[in-house]
Amino acid sequence: MVSVELVAVGTELLLGQLVDTNTAFVAHRLADAGVDVYASHAVGDNRERIVSTLRSALSRADGVVTTGGLGPTVDDLTKEAVCDALGLDTELDQASLNKMEDFFTAVGRTMRENNVKQAMIPRGARVLPNAHGTAPGFVAFGADGTFVACMPGVPGEMKPMLTEHLVPFLRERYALSTGVTTRVLRTVNIAESEIDHRIADLFRASENPKIAVLAHGGRCDVKIMAKASSPQDAQGMIAPLQAEIERRLDGFVFGHDGETLEGVIHDLLQRHQLTVSVAESCTGGRIAAALTRTPGSSKSFVGGVVAYDNSVKISHLGVARQTLDSFGAVSEQVVCEMALGAVERLASTLAISTTGIAGPDGATREKPVGLVWIALAGTNGTVNARRTEFPGNRAAIQDRATTAALGMLWKYLTAWEPNVPRPT
Amino acid sequence: MVSVELVAVGTELLLGQLVDTNTAFVAHRLADAGVDVYASHAVGDNRERIVSTLRSALSRADGVVTTGGLGPTVDDLTKEAVCDALGLDTELDQASLNKMEDFFTAVGRTMRENNVKQAMIPRGARVLPNAHGTAPGFVAFGADGTFVACMPGVPGEMKPMLTEHLVPFLRERYALSTGVTTRVLRTVNIAESEIDHRIADLFRASENPKIAVLAHGGRCDVKIMAKASSPQDAQGMIAPLQAEIERRLDGFVFGHDGETLEGVIHDLLQRHQLTVSVAESCTGGRIAAALTRTPGSSKSFVGGVVAYDNSVKISHLGVARQTLDSFGAVSEQVVCEMALGAVERLASTLAISTTGIAGPDGATREKPVGLVWIALAGTNGTVNARRTEFPGNRAAIQDRATTAALGMLWKYLTAWEPNVPRPT
Repeated sequence: MVSVELVAVGTELLLGQLVDTNTAFVAHRLADAGVDVYASHAVGDNRERIVSTLRSALSRADGVVTTGGLGPTVDDLTKEAVCDALGLDTELDQASLNKMEDFFTAVGRTMRENNVKQAMIPRGARVLPNAHGTAPGFVAFGADGTFVACMPGVPGEMKPMLTEHLVPFLRERYALSTGVTTRVLRTVNIAESEIDHRIADLFRASENPKIAVLAHGGRCDVKIMAKASSPQDAQGMIAPLQAEIERRLDGFVFGHDGETLEGVIHDLLQRHQLTVSVAESCTGGRIAAALTRTPGSSKSFVGGVVAYDNSVKISHLGVARQTLDSFGAVSEQVVCEMALGAVERLASTLAISTTGIAGPDGATREKPVGLVWIALAGTNGTVNARRTEFPGNRAAIQDRATTAALGMLWKYLTAWEPNVPRPT
Repeated sequence: MVSVELVAVGTELLLGQLVDTNTAFVAHRLADAGVDVYASHAVGDNRERIVSTLRSALSRADGVVTTGGLGPTVDDLTKEAVCDALGLDTELDQASLNKMEDFFTAVGRTMRENNVKQAMIPRGARVLPNAHGTAPGFVAFGADGTFVACMPGVPGEMKPMLTEHLVPFLRERYALSTGVTTRVLRTVNIAESEIDHRIADLFRASENPKIAVLAHGGRCDVKIMAKASSPQDAQGMIAPLQAEIERRLDGFVFGHDGETLEGVIHDLLQRHQLTVSVAESCTGGRIAAALTRTPGSSKSFVGGVVAYDNSVKISHLGVARQTLDSFGAVSEQVVCEMALGAVERLASTLAISTTGIAGPDGATREKPVGLVWIALAGTNGTVNARRTEFPGNRAAIQDRATTAALGMLWKYLTAWEPNVPRPT
């Protein structure tokens, strides 16, 4: 087992004008190889701060992997900082110098003194050849057995250097035989705190496999990550834990890994030979937009009406003017008439409807911002409505109501036939 | 002047399965406010390592800004680590607890003990209110004057907390005056390469103010950034450059800074006392979703029909069956009938319609994936259609067609009356 921290060098990473994608790539490849990535850092082109970051990282981990700061200019300082941190001087790597000279001859340019600087490496370091550029990478060693591996920041040079040279080196040196396999359980209709309440003991008991809960926009993913010497072994470690979590979250897990809620809904509709339409007021087209994300959705999604103005609720969905007058547009009666109207007029077998107050205006004492009615017209003329008050601003209310509507449709579809096989 | 380091907390950031975009956002906003960002770090859900990272960061910088690890679960450890690093215990923030209780009552769910944990903050800390979720942020203070500011990792909660609470707090506490002032010119209906061609010389000539072009989903922003000791001075540096760029991009700049295309469209519709409806096939509700993003959009947006299935084009928009049979659903004739049908049946003054092939299936030799017809039915029974072939996958085609439809509507509205004052 070996642990590392990552250090990305470059002031441009700290101005926020570009997103650092190197770190995720390096972390992913190292994790796959069984390396424990403890932390990652981005630091500007400042020698003192790079040294300080390297030293504190080496106090926690077996080694450090850096990207960037190996170029020929004065603000490329990674190599100098590594020498400072490990107490080393530099030596010329003749093979790298020869290669560089060949390169400059080939392109007909003059090699500058600052290019020679690129062929200098920390004394005793092992070179990581650069097949796609002039600056070699290297692994430098401290007296205490720690190491610092340095690669260029240009993704096209760094990526092959990592996979073809650094990972094989680490595998061999640390006799790595393990990798990480991940399984994601995707849930809907349940809060993060409720998931935590149900599985916290599993969380605490298990370091490998490790469990994580990630919430995003009204949906939660439960991730199970296992480290093992083969994907088969990892799978064997994940299986019983997955079964236990699925048992405790029964009725909330809609899919796994890359599956989407709208994709699972599409498959269920297809399997049962059902179609759906929508009648949206406060969600303003978002449910339709979600349902049409899935390729082939025209087979299960008929279409919909965005009935923002009351006149459209009447003209296109057949909501009775009297219902609107008596109960108001945001009411159980109206949301039910919308769903039933969609089934009838759009000729679908199911329909989902929404009406609510997304705000910031339009609230009354009885009907606050965030109040949303969602209805589902099922087969055989049935209709079911649910009232929810969603927190957050206009965008959050619109998004959460959309997720809740899809969650309601999914729930209906899974229960539609008693023995629906679970989508896998 | 104040210096900070950033710490993103979460094991998922170190597995390389997601790219951390929070850090770039926070770095950007802080740099704009004149804060020196020395370094950024990502660390897993491990209390000891979070503490060690915080301590070494505080040895180099005046403060630390963290994201993530404030949730209710057992692997949310940021608050505990901050208390360890600064030598503080926690206290209850009653306001946050009350807000949380209201939330759980409203949604009809039971508050768990682990939710109460979210209302605990380090003793003496200043609360950063969370308008979009339950977990409050805070700024905790060390005995030596250093600080650690903690925000949630959910971008929708973190971003407003940063701009509305943390940045103003830092500005006031450190009397920040040298800052970067940014002016954004927002364009539509013009390609990034065409913008580059028109303003490349200005680009090269100017270091401060600096110019950047950022493309996203069929729209481009031109950013002008000036560094100066006061916003007024920066404004004075930006003004002549802005005027020159606007002259060169005449007819493509729809707004500035935080203005949105749909917001500008809403204002123009209101000013001219016009209303719009939509008839969407391949965009599947996305134009309606965009138009309803703006608060108060019910005043200018009547509603729409998502006519995915041909039967809906006939029943809800009055498209003639013969037109569909003769020309196919993806045709100039059908898209025009859709727009005219929407104006008539939804009783709006304008309507925008789309029909196309988002793929991956459904293409023919004459009608490739990416082919989209967009029509605009104007006042007085006029209708205008445009054919475009959009590149990219299904999601990109759906998004670009939506932007193009909004761009067409905006163009029509700006030309509608010869002397429309520019939205500012």
